Amino acid sequence: MSETTRDKHEPIRVGVIGVGRMGARHAQNLSGAVAGAKLVAVADPDEAAVRRVGDELGVAGVYTDYRELLARDDVEAVVIAAPADTREEMIAACLAAGKHMLCEKPVAHDLPAARRVAKMLEGAEVTFQLGFMRRFDPAYVRAHRLIREGVIGRPVFIRLVSRDAEGPPLGFVGGSGGLFVDSSVHDFDLARWLMGSEVERVYALGGTFVYPEYAEHGDIDVGAVSLRFAGGAIGLHDNARKSGYGYDIRTEVLGTDGAIQIGYLNQDSVVLLKNDRPGYDYVPDFLARFADAYRLELQHFIDVLRKGGTPAVGVEDGVRALEIAAAARASLESGLPVSVASQHPVGAADAEPKELEVS
Amino acid sequence: MSETTRDKHEPIRVGVIGVGRMGARHAQNLSGAVAGAKLVAVADPDEAAVRRVGDELGVAGVYTDYRELLARDDVEAVVIAAPADTREEMIAACLAAGKHMLCEKPVAHDLPAARRVAKMLEGAEVTFQLGFMRRFDPAYVRAHRLIREGVIGRPVFIRLVSRDAEGPPLGFVGGSGGLFVDSSVHDFDLARWLMGSEVERVYALGGTFVYPEYAEHGDIDVGAVSLRFAGGAIGLHDNARKSGYGYDIRTEVLGTDGAIQIGYLNQDSVVLLKNDRPGYDYVPDFLARFADAYRLELQHFIDVLRKGGTPAVGVEDGVRALEIAAAARASLESGLPVSVASQHPVGAADAEPKELEVS
Amino acid sequence: MSETTRDKHEPIRVGVIGVGRMGARHAQNLSGAVAGAKLVAVADPDEAAVRRVGDELGVAGVYTDYRELLARDDVEAVVIAAPADTREEMIAACLAAGKHMLCEKPVAHDLPAARRVAKMLEGAEVTFQLGFMRRFDPAYVRAHRLIREGVIGRPVFIRLVSRDAEGPPLGFVGGSGGLFVDSSVHDFDLARWLMGSEVERVYALGGTFVYPEYAEHGDIDVGAVSLRFAGGAIGLHDNARKSGYGYDIRTEVLGTDGAIQIGYLNQDSVVLLKNDRPGYDYVPDFLARFADAYRLELQHFIDVLRKGGTPAVGVEDGVRALEIAAAARASLESGLPVSVASQHPVGAADAEPKELEVS
Amino acid sequence: MSETTRDKHEPIRVGVIGVGRMGARHAQNLSGAVAGAKLVAVADPDEAAVRRVGDELGVAGVYTDYRELLARDDVEAVVIAAPADTREEMIAACLAAGKHMLCEKPVAHDLPAARRVAKMLEGAEVTFQLGFMRRFDPAYVRAHRLIREGVIGRPVFIRLVSRDAEGPPLGFVGGSGGLFVDSSVHDFDLARWLMGSEVERVYALGGTFVYPEYAEHGDIDVGAVSLRFAGGAIGLHDNARKSGYGYDIRTEVLGTDGAIQIGYLNQDSVVLLKNDRPGYDYVPDFLARFADAYRLELQHFIDVLRKGGTPAVGVEDGVRALEIAAAARASLESGLPVSVASQHPVGAADAEPKELEVS
Repeated sequence: MSETTRDKHEPIRVGVIGVGRMGARHAQNLSGAVAGAKLVAVADPDEAAVRRVGDELGVAGVYTDYRELLARDDVEAVVIAAPADTREEMIAACLAAGKHMLCEKPVAHDLPAARRVAKMLEGAEVTFQLGFMRRFDPAYVRAHRLIREGVIGRPVFIRLVSRDAEGPPLGFVGGSGGLFVDSSVHDFDLARWLMGSEVERVYALGGTFVYPEYAEHGDIDVGAVSLRFAGGAIGLHDNARKSGYGYDIRTEVLGTDGAIQIGYLNQDSVVLLKNDRPGYDYVPDFLARFADAYRLELQHFIDVLRKGGTPAVGVEDGVRALEIAAAARASLESGLPVSVASQHPVGAADAEPKELEVS
Repeated sequence: MSETTRDKHEPIRVGVIGVGRMGARHAQNLSGAVAGAKLVAVADPDEAAVRRVGDELGVAGVYTDYRELLARDDVEAVVIAAPADTREEMIAACLAAGKHMLCEKPVAHDLPAARRVAKMLEGAEVTFQLGFMRRFDPAYVRAHRLIREGVIGRPVFIRLVSRDAEGPPLGFVGGSGGLFVDSSVHDFDLARWLMGSEVERVYALGGTFVYPEYAEHGDIDVGAVSLRFAGGAIGLHDNARKSGYGYDIRTEVLGTDGAIQIGYLNQDSVVLLKNDRPGYDYVPDFLARFADAYRLELQHFIDVLRKGGTPAVGVEDGVRALEIAAAARASLESGLPVSVASQHPVGAADAEPKELEVS
Repeated sequence: MSETTRDKHEPIRVGVIGVGRMGARHAQNLSGAVAGAKLVAVADPDEAAVRRVGDELGVAGVYTDYRELLARDDVEAVVIAAPADTREEMIAACLAAGKHMLCEKPVAHDLPAARRVAKMLEGAEVTFQLGFMRRFDPAYVRAHRLIREGVIGRPVFIRLVSRDAEGPPLGFVGGSGGLFVDSSVHDFDLARWLMGSEVERVYALGGTFVYPEYAEHGDIDVGAVSLRFAGGAIGLHDNARKSGYGYDIRTEVLGTDGAIQIGYLNQDSVVLLKNDRPGYDYVPDFLARFADAYRLELQHFIDVLRKGGTPAVGVEDGVRALEIAAAARASLESGLPVSVASQHPVGAADAEPKELEVS
Repeated sequence: MSETTRDKHEPIRVGVIGVGRMGARHAQNLSGAVAGAKLVAVADPDEAAVRRVGDELGVAGVYTDYRELLARDDVEAVVIAAPADTREEMIAACLAAGKHMLCEKPVAHDLPAARRVAKMLEGAEVTFQLGFMRRFDPAYVRAHRLIREGVIGRPVFIRLVSRDAEGPPLGFVGGSGGLFVDSSVHDFDLARWLMGSEVERVYALGGTFVYPEYAEHGDIDVGAVSLRFAGGAIGLHDNARKSGYGYDIRTEVLGTDGAIQIGYLNQDSVVLLKNDRPGYDYVPDFLARFADAYRLELQHFIDVLRKGGTPAVGVEDGVRALEIAAAARASLESGLPVSVASQHPVGAADAEPKELEVS
């Protein structure tokens, strides 16, 4: 489906695979909020769900087998929002069918699969964008720009806080890859992007404090990760499955001449004052907090398809974030710092002498 | 100098040893702001400085040798604000002279000296209070109370941020014990106090980004420390010598059912809106931010002396905080986690298997 | 141009009249950000300006005479962003040509003209929407919903603050209708909408403090208006042409059981911390602060045209806001309270006795 | 009781008349928190109450008749915290007995009485301070200083918000003088002090929305007052007996080059995050919000007595604030603007033509 054969004023025809919470949101955004796109097909093995979404959005092409969706010649691009452990197969199928892809994060359920996907996509003619939607949040976009402009000097420290309102059900935890893979990958991606530097070494702590049953799956509900970047910069990340007060994503970057904070407890500029209600906004989840970001990442994808260029977030970003998550997991298990490159603990024997002259 | 021989309505007569920035502030507070106290003597080897303070505050007893101050029978209590490496000797002298003491932190310049002081004070009849003034800051006091009341459930994670407006001169850095001993001890004390639990293991990262000359003394200007508490709770601390926007002390405690944040960028409830000025308060330093706390810790000391009881902060708190600081330093140097109890790195051999069922 | 003759999947074809700052923004929004719309023509007597906008946005239909734009059969809807004193004539021409209209506020430069326009539009078959974009700002939308849901009880007091970063040039002031007509109409519209009640009486104070030259045109640069609503509720509005710290729009509604505040000094959730820069966002103007609102009001207009219904803001809202503005002006000139209905000062003779039992 | 006959190191001996909520707080502050003062006597016709306060604070001198307290030679200064309609008589008695006075606001229950008190105090040798404690609140003090330094240019507009958590009982309302006299006098005093200018004309609106029974006493529960200052500056004040979310005092001053905001919803720098609790501080009342200010105004009083000088707040400030409150009341009743000097409504006949060139 080459750009040359299509009328540039025609909208991009898109199919969505997977219509759970996330896929349903993408389908909705494609049905009005995203300029230049037209939702033409949806697929999901859950027949009732896919039929409901199709009806609501007036989409004629409704499939329980995603391969039927891919078989349609008029579908130019696909949004993959199916479970993480099915993505490798789907990406391969989309590639074979010549469809452009916007794929939810993580790109795969584990690091080896993610690396296979990256290899598969090398030299591909189709466009592949990964769903790190925080990079499209207006606040993060502005902070990134200010940092790149040097407004706070050279960035030397980053702090990343992620907290869900409530933890996911035990059933989800088992297949999620754990707190660091499932949730912290967003923070690891932000860390790389905002600092403009790769993470070299991690050290992780964690425990189960609210949901002891998570331990059955080897998972934790509070985690903390120290990050050492190439060049010596430092990061600290903490993540909690239950905040007790709503969904809360905050980031702070300290530079050699100032700092930037992103995110706070108000969704917008409304403050409600009541004796018996939180004065800050109760933000229930990522769909609420990042509603704009989800719309804007889709818009970016469609704009790249229509006007050319490369998506701001590619498969390699997904691999990098998973590498950090896997190293954090290894550190939690070994009780030692872990090298991201080797994925091995750094023991007393091979611990490098500390160099203080990093600048 | 027993309580029985003095009129309980008489003010406590206090002498101040050391009239640098900190000692001068204590002397000033004792000359009016603290009820029930009377400043009667000041001592400092810097004759011009001690004379100036004596004149300003109308204190007749002005000495260059602190031993002369201690020789006065009418001096019941002493504030020690002399350099850290002179404190061991002074505490011994005060003890011999039967004077009550409020001693600036850290209790000594290194851990062995601090432990000697603690031993020296065992069973002493005089009262000894350590100057962790943050424990008297009204905001920290309220947060501590709310946590103890169980308002946020069981505390499981703490984050502590400390940033100075500007780094100290190189001359100070050499004798300071380094970033963790000189500055982070405050945070380590807050961590123990707010979490109600001891720190068992630390892992530290750091570097020199703004003041490369600090490396000459083996010191850093940005540091980050992971804390593991007894019982499994987790902490992350970051510290920077130069913020680029003023003095900034913030703490956050996450519990199993909510969170508490302490500290922000406004000194009081004034917001100045100008095109060319910071909209938040520029807080220059600890003397400005903790002005109330310094007054209130002195008031607590005087109240304990007049009404009986034990100070809220004792020498053992100073030893504990120094143990954590020393372990952080050892972690920075070894590149490995360090046990606070043994002060030794935890290597691959002796790293305990991670237990996830900590709750 | 009836709905029945057009394919409902076709975008609405829109022309923009007037390509100054405001019109250029509308044209830009119609070229991508608004789903279901297609910008097909622009008109402005300033040939260079209209040609530039046409080129930038790839619009073929470029006219210096708006009548040529209206003569195009394929133009279904028009955005009127020409100067206020030309709008009456343009609305008449659009009406004659059967075009739907989104018209910038104020609907006319004075109250009599606005009333003539309202009369003209009575029973019209085309859709007319007025550009009170604040009603589409997500924060105001949420506050309005919360108030209607009774979250703060019955609304009894409203406070509305409007401040520009810098005052307009003297040339603009002369034809603007003055501070209350040009700027406060937005607040008067918000007051009616949020309180759900009409303003019956106003009392105004004002002066020229920063731009004495405004007095040449009988205008002021700071104004304050007391509002009395039908049913007894109360409002206070203040407006300043120069804030000294950026564009600042804030509103607060107090109910019988709580309050809601809308608007503050941050554009989004980024806080920049620097010694020498404002810590709050410097918001330059309404185009920056209400960027979303301008997009969403256009989207609302297009959605109404495609799906049917009546716009949320009609010509009568423009007339009501102008009535309040004109009464405020009359109060400023007479030094007395003024009835909105009669537009006459309330003198000692006819001042009603105060009834306190308003509830 | 001349300064020459007393030892300047002796504390000032103070008696407190009236031990209701306010007087009990003053007595408590004099028993420790205020340096240089000694509480020696308390008086109140309520024998049980005065005995309880005396016992708690260890004060031997306990009286039901304040004249017995005044008869003690050793009492140098008196704090008057008895009901407003008894203050004129007490001030006369204190004057006759040669006692210094700190008198609660308002200085009297109505304007004529206040003017008689002012006349009575003309040329008096004793010191008289009025209890406008907000002038001693650290935030207001800092804002006042910044304005005087010209940081925001020339102040041209002031906005003052006062809200109680809950309205007073009906019994109190009858003798309170009404919302403007009882509560808004604080704001009128702040307005004069912060703007550095006298109020010339007021216009008031009000109603009973929450407590309809207040109308029995001719009182309101929400009020709004427009202020015109000498020289043309403008003010808007709103006051509510019930906020629905706690005690809330906020002030904003706009200058020709910037603005200052004082007061917000947090008592200190603690933010509690919980699903089911207000995220801002619930501040119950003035005793909580202005705890520091009450201590500091007493300290100021004692310092003036010990070191000489004139209190920052005198009887004339009380008279001015009452004049504005009485004019606001007259405006509410007449429905017209009222001149503060003449206390008469400004009718159509004598309304001055508006001059716009005020600068």
